[in-house]
Amino acid sequence: MTTAVPAEDTRTRLLGTALRLFAEHGVEGTSLQMIADALGVTKAAVYYHFKTKAEITEAVAEPGIRELDVLVVEAAKQRRRGAQIDQLLDGFVDLVVRHRVLVALFSSDPGINRAIEKSAHGMEGFKNALIAILAGPDPDVAARVTAMVALTGVAMAGGSPDLAELDDETLRRELIDVGRRLMGRPRRH
Amino acid sequence: MTTAVPAEDTRTRLLGTALRLFAEHGVEGTSLQMIADALGVTKAAVYYHFKTKAEITEAVAEPGIRELDVLVVEAAKQRRRGAQIDQLLDGFVDLVVRHRVLVALFSSDPGINRAIEKSAHGMEGFKNALIAILAGPDPDVAARVTAMVALTGVAMAGGSPDLAELDDETLRRELIDVGRRLMGRPRRH
Repeated sequence: MTTAVPAEDTRTRLLGTALRLFAEHGVEGTSLQMIADALGVTKAAVYYHFKTKAEITEAVAEPGIRELDVLVVEAAKQRRRGAQIDQLLDGFVDLVVRHRVLVALFSSDPGINRAIEKSAHGMEGFKNALIAILAGPDPDVAARVTAMVALTGVAMAGGSPDLAELDDETLRRELIDVGRRLMGRPRRH
Repeated sequence: MTTAVPAEDTRTRLLGTALRLFAEHGVEGTSLQMIADALGVTKAAVYYHFKTKAEITEAVAEPGIRELDVLVVEAAKQRRRGAQIDQLLDGFVDLVVRHRVLVALFSSDPGINRAIEKSAHGMEGFKNALIAILAGPDPDVAARVTAMVALTGVAMAGGSPDLAELDDETLRRELIDVGRRLMGRPRRH
């Protein structure tokens, strides 16, 4: 038996702490030293996992990005338009609600966006894929504008500090309701 | 007669140039020297109008902010809820479309937000006033979430580079359509 904390645990704690500090001070207002201090470790211990703040920023966003990727692929597999929209909307709202703090950061901090732009897909690619499914094939202007309002509205409202007091279940239900109304899908409840 | 350009014209040109540079390089990536160069004047000429970049940022955002202020006051004067929503939605969409470049900057650059936060109202005050009118008195959760999605979605879609190729009239009509559907108002056309 050993009392040493496994490296994976430190890494997970480090990313959680970094996200909290990013949300509080912005990506640019957070230093590696601040992350080390908040974790109660040395800066060398942080360096063991990540060489730069950019690496941390990418790693913080990575789980959400990966889920978004899976969501787009899975929704696109649905045969019928209605099923595609339903799956994308359910999945997108769920993702936004579970990653609320990260989503809030996305909409307020260019530091995190810059980090994502450098990654394989970039947010532009994801946004286009999401809108392509919501707006459907050969969309007219109305369909494009509707899809854009739905996606950005759900993301911004979901990450908004003004709705931070809502529990996940309530926020999820309301965002899905609004999204379905926008997309002309029947109400569920 | 004199060939000297009136100070007011230089100021107006300066703000237009600053907005263009902000949109291109971000507020933080734009220097007073870059603004002077783009205008073909000396840095001293810029200093004559504005002492700091923060002053320029505030002045760039000021016309839009002032219009937003008037809009909120005027919409609140309407007696009936429906008329309040209609006036706010029409006015907000019109404002977003006319100030597209500025709106895009708001949603991507914290530099401009920081400048506004320092001004009298701050964006938080405006956002609350807009949402209060859209969501109505004693709003339930559904009304609050709907108002938030409508406002942020209209602003983000209106400022989006993905819809930048739409002419003002088309973008205005589509955003009003989506906003009215969200708010449960009857279609106009």
